[in-house]
Amino acid sequence: MSKDRLYLYDTTLRDGAQTAGIEFSLDDKISIAALLEELGVDYIEGGYPGANPVDTEFFGEQRTNKARFTAFGMTKRAGRSVANDPGVQGLLQSRAEAACFVAKAWDRQVETALEITLEENLANLSETVVATVAAGKEALVDCEHFFDGFKSNPDYALSCVRTALEAGARWVVLCDTNGGTMPAEIREIVTAVLGVAPGDKLGIHAHDDTGQAVANTLAAVEAGVRQIQGTLNGIGERCGNANLVTIIPTLLLKSHYADRFATGIDAGRLERLTQLSRAFDDRLNRAPARQAPYVGASAFATKAGIHASALAKDFSSYEHIPPESVGNERSIMVSQQAGRSNLLTALARHGIAIAKDDPRLERLLATVKEREARGYSYDGADASFAVLAREVLGTLPNFFAVENYRASVERRHNAQGEEVTVTEAVVKIRVDGELLMSVAEGNGPVNALDLALRKDLGKFSSRIEDLVLVDFKVRILDGGTGAVTRVLVESRDGTGERWHTIGVSPNIIDASFEALYESITYKLLKTEATAAKAVKTA
Amino acid sequence: MSKDRLYLYDTTLRDGAQTAGIEFSLDDKISIAALLEELGVDYIEGGYPGANPVDTEFFGEQRTNKARFTAFGMTKRAGRSVANDPGVQGLLQSRAEAACFVAKAWDRQVETALEITLEENLANLSETVVATVAAGKEALVDCEHFFDGFKSNPDYALSCVRTALEAGARWVVLCDTNGGTMPAEIREIVTAVLGVAPGDKLGIHAHDDTGQAVANTLAAVEAGVRQIQGTLNGIGERCGNANLVTIIPTLLLKSHYADRFATGIDAGRLERLTQLSRAFDDRLNRAPARQAPYVGASAFATKAGIHASALAKDFSSYEHIPPESVGNERSIMVSQQAGRSNLLTALARHGIAIAKDDPRLERLLATVKEREARGYSYDGADASFAVLAREVLGTLPNFFAVENYRASVERRHNAQGEEVTVTEAVVKIRVDGELLMSVAEGNGPVNALDLALRKDLGKFSSRIEDLVLVDFKVRILDGGTGAVTRVLVESRDGTGERWHTIGVSPNIIDASFEALYESITYKLLKTEATAAKAVKTA
Repeated sequence: MSKDRLYLYDTTLRDGAQTAGIEFSLDDKISIAALLEELGVDYIEGGYPGANPVDTEFFGEQRTNKARFTAFGMTKRAGRSVANDPGVQGLLQSRAEAACFVAKAWDRQVETALEITLEENLANLSETVVATVAAGKEALVDCEHFFDGFKSNPDYALSCVRTALEAGARWVVLCDTNGGTMPAEIREIVTAVLGVAPGDKLGIHAHDDTGQAVANTLAAVEAGVRQIQGTLNGIGERCGNANLVTIIPTLLLKSHYADRFATGIDAGRLERLTQLSRAFDDRLNRAPARQAPYVGASAFATKAGIHASALAKDFSSYEHIPPESVGNERSIMVSQQAGRSNLLTALARHGIAIAKDDPRLERLLATVKEREARGYSYDGADASFAVLAREVLGTLPNFFAVENYRASVERRHNAQGEEVTVTEAVVKIRVDGELLMSVAEGNGPVNALDLALRKDLGKFSSRIEDLVLVDFKVRILDGGTGAVTRVLVESRDGTGERWHTIGVSPNIIDASFEALYESITYKLLKTEATAAKAVKTA
Repeated sequence: MSKDRLYLYDTTLRDGAQTAGIEFSLDDKISIAALLEELGVDYIEGGYPGANPVDTEFFGEQRTNKARFTAFGMTKRAGRSVANDPGVQGLLQSRAEAACFVAKAWDRQVETALEITLEENLANLSETVVATVAAGKEALVDCEHFFDGFKSNPDYALSCVRTALEAGARWVVLCDTNGGTMPAEIREIVTAVLGVAPGDKLGIHAHDDTGQAVANTLAAVEAGVRQIQGTLNGIGERCGNANLVTIIPTLLLKSHYADRFATGIDAGRLERLTQLSRAFDDRLNRAPARQAPYVGASAFATKAGIHASALAKDFSSYEHIPPESVGNERSIMVSQQAGRSNLLTALARHGIAIAKDDPRLERLLATVKEREARGYSYDGADASFAVLAREVLGTLPNFFAVENYRASVERRHNAQGEEVTVTEAVVKIRVDGELLMSVAEGNGPVNALDLALRKDLGKFSSRIEDLVLVDFKVRILDGGTGAVTRVLVESRDGTGERWHTIGVSPNIIDASFEALYESITYKLLKTEATAAKAVKTA
């Protein structure tokens, strides 16, 4: 049986730009468009040419190769011609290959917000689409408030769809603009629309205001629509848009859909989905959502002793898909709930072999629990767990000892009367009995400590040359006996491996130093085998 | 028409404890149970008595008044009697009023994970339920892997349901344990189960692995089940459980459900839902999810100029429910996309009256855009916006000026050879021409600076006595010209008001100081009217 083709329309760069806290620069837009091209969506909606300088510049060039490069705007205003409407002309004169125009499909909105007659609204819509097609571009129409409009006045909502198609629109998109429609209502209303329009000319645009943007989208597809609008990681106004990073693997991996539908995404791309989702968050300077379906760090994580042992027997029981099919990975966490079986799995992952009945296991478990009670959390700091485990098991090499350190920050006026900040750190360590003292300036106390600590590690210096501090996160925990600071440091080295270390203290500087120290220790552990081999070879 | 009663079963304290990074103390459990009681759920599942010390102690007392206090455990093991099974006895001897037992309903799982026969599994289930009822407790059975089990062997899955009910279980809960089932499959399979069990004895337990936990839950309710399992804020293993904070307002506010179903939650409680959701995150030391349906800070936020002006005309267009019905609020944000209309709304919220054509508006807009380009973000720092606006408009009183400050942290060994950290800050300010210098020790440099800054504000000191620093967040932004640190400080005062200020700098200390300084300035602005009045009265 031949499969129906579903078209994926990405609006990350347009509706996604409505997200609180997100602003795209031109660079951001170019880089995100490249991610979307790599993913293989069919349409990339890039913004509003003519409405602001960034979008106008973005649409000054053709920015896509395979995906259709699409601009967004409003249909022409009443009382002026398309030729004299600067909004519409901004789109028609841009380098966009397709233009998507939003038109209100809710009678009340037309009358109260636009303050025009229902007929004028249809005429504006029709003339805009005709002009777009005449300009050689594909025309799409987003029917805003379609579902609320249908509930209020089904005939008018349907006449918007009919008018758009008659004027030559390739797609009419049914928008649940305020996100309040239920999946059952979506099914029922889409079914009614099929009476005036074929499904392969209909799209769905859903928002997550009741946590059902994905379900509403899939309900519309099941009912008959063939275009899906959504965003990367579900960004978007209010609660966000339908999350393409969730919808795509569902369409490709769940037989309920995969047996009936085809998309432009191939399986090879799917295997890079987790990486792509995280690269997008990196670009936005956001921490990836751990619980995100398919791609979250926790999506295939388990910490229950009971589940962990079942997992070892049959992974598919607790995993609805193989994590590697979306480029994610299974993770069995160490935590207060940990039993021996989790602990053994975690140790094995770090290459630490130990017998099941080794009494040191109990000691390690007790240490982990005691430290977690003080604010440590090894779920997200695997490298610190590896260091701690070796310490408790007595197999941590004595690389170097920190004697003391000091950091100071001073804000004052310089001789010219300008405000300046001077930040300095001093670190004293001992390597093989030799005292090494380093001082460094930094753009903050943690940076200065990091630079001073790494400045001279004696014989270990060459082994940490490719170590880079990637991210630094701080959280204040309100524990029983007063607030403590938890610092998480993410590091990377030349091999591309990333690792996380943790520090906890009432003092942010002590907590940061602990996490930095453990990151270096982990890097030295990593290179221990190689270093030993090098010595042997030499 | 009489409405069908839906029963809400909260598993925050049990399945929620499987969340990566979450560990509940006894205090946490008691406090969260109180939140749940206040909300009005029907069942509170508190954990596994007998399995760990915290849960055993939690179940040593009756912890609920109205909600049914429920324990969770596994059905008895093969080869021993209920009386000799310590797991089952842990539940039966606890103070729980109800006991929920998990039983596998997937033939393959019974044989491979439990390594018993299908018949033994049914016998274990039956005997456990019979003993529970005999012990005077309500019995519930969670059919683990029910939907996968049904797809593999429908007869066996159904025989688990039938056996549980025949043995006297009040509820049989259909669990989508690995979260991979689609809403359409849920509907179809629940419909089949109704052939062997009435809907008012069936429950649904859904996970969010395809982003459809809420939709799967509602699909099961529409198909006929009458008990809903879920957690606060959707915490839970992997991608989380069905989010009760999303489901509850949907059931109560959407006519699609509200017309047909009743719950134990009343409208007055619903109006405190946002507060409850945030109190829960506070307890977990997590930042609330901004995009969360209904209760997120962004759930009723808009920043588009086009939408903002439509909103002013008719709020219901872009709001699927009135925000106050769930205790949330509308927010119109200031951002790079801001037009004059957003800016005027934001200014009005802070009581700043200004004419639409005042040229200072352009200057303020340009300043906001310039600062956001450097890493500031006023979406989440409304108090800093208020301070900035008054500064640009020239109406910020000259409270006090900071001449300089210094913070130092030193880690060293004391005379007894113990490691100690000494943290000290000095702040020099000028109030009315008078130089005031303060020094303080703190448990970290920011704390020391905060204490030193507030130690002596001269004539303003009494006005900041009730100012409390509630939270402190740090984020590293990787800007074009090198990393900068963004610090967000949340403050509170005796009136209960909370406000957020922001500081941005390559140096974390400078950024923190800026945010602290703005918080004090905001507090002084707040009390300006009162202070002026007091002077007048005096």
